[in-house]
Amino acid sequence: MSKAGGIEAGGSKFVCAIGSGPDDLDSVEFPTTTPEETVDRVIEFFRQRGRVEAVGIGSFGPIDPDPQSATFGYITSTPKLAWRNFDLAGAIRERLHVKVAFDTDVNAAALGELRWGAALRLPTFLYLTVGTGVGGGGMLDGRLLHGRRHPEMGHVRIPHDRDRDPFAGNCPYHGDCLEGLAAAPAIEARWGQPAQALPDEHPAWELEAHYLALGIANLSLVFSPQRVILGGGIMRREQLYPAVRAKVSALLNGYIDAPEIVPPGLGARAGVLGAIALAQAM
Amino acid sequence: MSKAGGIEAGGSKFVCAIGSGPDDLDSVEFPTTTPEETVDRVIEFFRQRGRVEAVGIGSFGPIDPDPQSATFGYITSTPKLAWRNFDLAGAIRERLHVKVAFDTDVNAAALGELRWGAALRLPTFLYLTVGTGVGGGGMLDGRLLHGRRHPEMGHVRIPHDRDRDPFAGNCPYHGDCLEGLAAAPAIEARWGQPAQALPDEHPAWELEAHYLALGIANLSLVFSPQRVILGGGIMRREQLYPAVRAKVSALLNGYIDAPEIVPPGLGARAGVLGAIALAQAM
Repeated sequence: MSKAGGIEAGGSKFVCAIGSGPDDLDSVEFPTTTPEETVDRVIEFFRQRGRVEAVGIGSFGPIDPDPQSATFGYITSTPKLAWRNFDLAGAIRERLHVKVAFDTDVNAAALGELRWGAALRLPTFLYLTVGTGVGGGGMLDGRLLHGRRHPEMGHVRIPHDRDRDPFAGNCPYHGDCLEGLAAAPAIEARWGQPAQALPDEHPAWELEAHYLALGIANLSLVFSPQRVILGGGIMRREQLYPAVRAKVSALLNGYIDAPEIVPPGLGARAGVLGAIALAQAM
Repeated sequence: MSKAGGIEAGGSKFVCAIGSGPDDLDSVEFPTTTPEETVDRVIEFFRQRGRVEAVGIGSFGPIDPDPQSATFGYITSTPKLAWRNFDLAGAIRERLHVKVAFDTDVNAAALGELRWGAALRLPTFLYLTVGTGVGGGGMLDGRLLHGRRHPEMGHVRIPHDRDRDPFAGNCPYHGDCLEGLAAAPAIEARWGQPAQALPDEHPAWELEAHYLALGIANLSLVFSPQRVILGGGIMRREQLYPAVRAKVSALLNGYIDAPEIVPPGLGARAGVLGAIALAQAM
């Protein structure tokens, strides 16, 4: 494949890279500040590295990924006010004079995993990330998930037994949706210390596996995926994988086959590599 | 469009039809008994009506709709034992010497609604039916939903407040999944009388709208549909539509736009018309 540019536009950091795949990746990362300052640093990186024909962007959101829409390429209703209604794809296209592909961060990561990672040649799989939020993307029957806009899988409601877990949830929109119960800020708010400070034997992890399994079981019933790639900072706690697998199987109870539940093959590089894959697919 | 055959293969009745669309539909229906007897009646209907090139089947399930699979066209793990592992598409193909298209009853209904009903030209929408079970199909970005097998949307877990609703749910696999809380048999088991006997002002309907709204809000976050077509016997209680719409909007709370929630444009004929559309699309 040809070299292309990739931008993983995250809410807390940007990763920019040029390359043709995992073996020749030249990348930098820097914190996300204002749109103007952040885009300046993006432009500087690509100008220094020389010409590419196309740049792919996997962005935090919500975004408008519909090429037919007047606001294609915009970050739309994000709670990060400075970025709301910012034309990210347009800024990159105009200043670098390149073709720009634009999708969600999680769809980009899914595409990276399809091309080089844990989803090689799989037509139907999901990519879920559990970190400061819970997000999901993926492919259904060989195509990235879109719909009217794009999935917001982290915000589904799941059963929440308040006797077992009195924490009310901390999603500003939905309270105890999956993200409001299972993202890193929810773990910290519930237990009074950051997730990474909790020991492996803390009951937090069994509860975390329970909520993630409820989400994954539901998504499996809805999408019928062959595999679920489960990543993000929280999943560095590797004991979660066998716990989630066992609970998903128990929840599905033989009604459908459980999907394989695996870590990302590309680790933390899935997003930026997927952004490059988005550009290569143009 | 040319004339084709359509079979809506339901767990309690079969509908067979020949036609090119809603305006020239010639159909019969009869109860579902054994596979042998039921297929005999199907064959008899089509032989009497004369030659068609192709027959589409929208079937109860679970089924195998993957044309690449060795068990394509089979009803697979259904609780109806006589039908388990029955090669329905093969039986029709061999005895009628026709091409056969095969999909779920709900995907067929979705395709019918796309062609002639409440989803004209919509690339992304869902078709949900609430009756003796809860099932869902639809299209995402212009293609019928499949995945590894097909969606089983009725079996997702939703929040269940046992203080408000002590009924444990009656899904034999999952207890209080959406189907176990909101299908007609659940309503009857909870309130001690058949759903159709409950007056409009009975609290059953507010609770029903609540559960359907939880399911639809989650599916909206996951698929980002433009419209949700909501049909089935329970939805003949028309007061449910405004109640479900209001609750879906409240649950989404402005985070994403709520989809339109509408009745099927084809009413009870969506399934068999969709089966004809499946055949026409071959």
